[in-house]
Amino acid sequence: MKSMEIFFNPHSVAIFASMKEGKTGYEIVKNMVEGGFKGKIYPVSQSGGQIFGVNINKDFKNLEIDLVIIAIPGQFIPPLLEDLGSRGVRSAVIISAGFSEVGKIEEEKEIKKIAKKHQMRIIGPNCAGIMNTDCNLFASIEVRALPGETAFITQSGALGGAVLMMAEELGFGFSKFVSYGNRCDVDEVDLIKYLEDDPQTKVIALYIEGLEEGRRFLAQAKKTVLKKPIVAIKAGKSKAGMRATSSHTGSLAGEDKIYDAAFKQAGILRVEGVEEMFDLCRGLIYYPKIKGNKIGVVTNSGGPAVLATDKLEELGLMVSEPSESLKNVLKEILPPHVSLGNPFDLLAYGSAETFTSTCKVIAPEYDAIITIFVPTASMDSTVIARALGKVKEKIKKPIFASFMAGRLVKEAIRELKKYGIPNYETGERCAKVIQKIYKNSR
Amino acid sequence: MKSMEIFFNPHSVAIFASMKEGKTGYEIVKNMVEGGFKGKIYPVSQSGGQIFGVNINKDFKNLEIDLVIIAIPGQFIPPLLEDLGSRGVRSAVIISAGFSEVGKIEEEKEIKKIAKKHQMRIIGPNCAGIMNTDCNLFASIEVRALPGETAFITQSGALGGAVLMMAEELGFGFSKFVSYGNRCDVDEVDLIKYLEDDPQTKVIALYIEGLEEGRRFLAQAKKTVLKKPIVAIKAGKSKAGMRATSSHTGSLAGEDKIYDAAFKQAGILRVEGVEEMFDLCRGLIYYPKIKGNKIGVVTNSGGPAVLATDKLEELGLMVSEPSESLKNVLKEILPPHVSLGNPFDLLAYGSAETFTSTCKVIAPEYDAIITIFVPTASMDSTVIARALGKVKEKIKKPIFASFMAGRLVKEAIRELKKYGIPNYETGERCAKVIQKIYKNSR
Repeated sequence: MKSMEIFFNPHSVAIFASMKEGKTGYEIVKNMVEGGFKGKIYPVSQSGGQIFGVNINKDFKNLEIDLVIIAIPGQFIPPLLEDLGSRGVRSAVIISAGFSEVGKIEEEKEIKKIAKKHQMRIIGPNCAGIMNTDCNLFASIEVRALPGETAFITQSGALGGAVLMMAEELGFGFSKFVSYGNRCDVDEVDLIKYLEDDPQTKVIALYIEGLEEGRRFLAQAKKTVLKKPIVAIKAGKSKAGMRATSSHTGSLAGEDKIYDAAFKQAGILRVEGVEEMFDLCRGLIYYPKIKGNKIGVVTNSGGPAVLATDKLEELGLMVSEPSESLKNVLKEILPPHVSLGNPFDLLAYGSAETFTSTCKVIAPEYDAIITIFVPTASMDSTVIARALGKVKEKIKKPIFASFMAGRLVKEAIRELKKYGIPNYETGERCAKVIQKIYKNSR
Repeated sequence: MKSMEIFFNPHSVAIFASMKEGKTGYEIVKNMVEGGFKGKIYPVSQSGGQIFGVNINKDFKNLEIDLVIIAIPGQFIPPLLEDLGSRGVRSAVIISAGFSEVGKIEEEKEIKKIAKKHQMRIIGPNCAGIMNTDCNLFASIEVRALPGETAFITQSGALGGAVLMMAEELGFGFSKFVSYGNRCDVDEVDLIKYLEDDPQTKVIALYIEGLEEGRRFLAQAKKTVLKKPIVAIKAGKSKAGMRATSSHTGSLAGEDKIYDAAFKQAGILRVEGVEEMFDLCRGLIYYPKIKGNKIGVVTNSGGPAVLATDKLEELGLMVSEPSESLKNVLKEILPPHVSLGNPFDLLAYGSAETFTSTCKVIAPEYDAIITIFVPTASMDSTVIARALGKVKEKIKKPIFASFMAGRLVKEAIRELKKYGIPNYETGERCAKVIQKIYKNSR
């Protein structure tokens, strides 16, 4: 695993690419410098000169290089790899496209052969690069990831780019980002194996269109999920989707049902798309397991709570009524008119005080609690968020939130995050996450 | 319908409520003044003084009032209504709670009786007010709606507030907003009937928990959908949801399956939650009908297009291959390596030129087109958005978009909106909208 480590924690990175404004090399160096990479950055290009305050090296003979990022035309790559390999470079990310994905199988094989000869590991070709937010390594032209606890690995570079942009918008962070493209060498299995022991990663998320070595993948996944959850999007379910998949990555998509069954068996959490992936990862980071299916809903807002309740029950979870003794406790601590049933609707009395006291007393009877809050003129949502955060530390049951919505709850949501309470746009989305985690906890 | 018209286009509005800072009256006057209401605003309260530059009237004997908004304690409402009724006021919105929803059935009946005597129409009680963005009427404490072409009517006031906040975040606008609460007089049917002929409204969206007069509702809906689509969230599907519904609005929820069948029969588009409602309304505003199920997907990004394709086919739509003759046309106009199959993946060649020429030539063979675009360093997404807008005017087939994502496409999405192209966070969400509209067009 030594060589995998160098990909993510290199002391020095050399970038072989055009450094002209707007070109790949330029964008990567920009990301590396602006992102504050902690090691050395060596742009390499015949142009010479300077870029973002860093010298561009005309050759690399005197450089000590841990990791190379390559984005030069395909025909120049084999001799460069030979040269780098003979100088002891052991890790290369090849961004350049134009290999097996356009039918150039032999060209890709050649690269693989050279790498093997020099015991060099390769990510790519035809990929969007890699990131490690822990050491500010942004070896990619994509939007820089925010720091976080989810590692995302993707077969599709463009999808990776879209995910990074959506994540930025959501304030969702990543520990690592890897676009592995045509995986001529490093594949999903190598990456999952590496991430299994990565202390910055709590959840591994992946986007795949097809696997080449299904058995090896599943064996690794089965082992990894004992340590941390794996969430997967498998695209190419439909006939037309499969057709498209094989045309744009050259990988065999295979029958979807087989994947579905295999994922279940391996304990991989399959999601349909990117939004569901974000939702689920946000929950798993804090709550890898939910032990039972009795869910308490605490709210100041009837309508949204009913929608969440409908979704919870549709998904097989139970919004069960409190015991008589719990009802008696609630009757004592809550104002009149407040519903003593589940969902616990605090109406206009939904304050930091009533939200937290309700959560505290109901916690022993429920396996998870969803708090649904709609701000009103008289209530400070940030105060409620903070109070819930403190309750969470005491009750030792998963608390989820749906603070609705927009600018009035932005700060409250940040506050919730500090305390490890994930917030969802709607209670229904929250319900879906709880169901997935619960099903995976049995 | 004269009296309904006065609710939405009054020349003068009197607000009976506490005008102290942070209280309901204060917040409503604030919304009315800041929102720029085009008629007269008469705050009425014993306090006197001024509020937001408007005089507070100690009594209302000399005021000419079209519409009254009432948020005083319940016991004072009957004599006030008597007084207002005898002075010829015909429209009242009662925001005050504490009626049938907390078991005070008789008190609500009394209000209804007084209203009937004076031929007065009442919205509420226990509601969050009304808005008409056409004349800047914001008779509510909720976040002011942006102007738009969807009318939203809701039984739950809190859900109404959450919807307005989510909409503001999305830049989604409304023609009218009505929270009708306990509907002691004006109900869904009256509102739908009124909105059917409202020129500012293209789509009617509603949130309901239960109907009192199912047959009357369905008869009206059947008539209205001939003119404009109706989208409905019906909450209280599950047992726990129904229990919660009857506790917090006092309405009978009824068996969900009956609603489902009745909605289908009446041509009402049922959605599961608020996000799906927004998505569908954004599509319906521009495309009330989609005539066939052959969908073309044009993209610069393989992965996201495969996910959209999977969802389209899962939902019974066809991402069908182009005819041989169309393939030949595409071969001539597009660069090599570009996929000539559907999804049409333009790869790194996805420019304004290739996007528009592809849309133009494929339009005759498809019933709707989804364009999926992931920005790259070298492409200006706004230019592509504008080019697609112009193509839309020519091809006369529905064009949808999923420009992914975040700040890099914000301006492009605004541009798309100008041309009436709805944009979705993901192609999958777009697929769901197309399927709903298509199914409703047969």
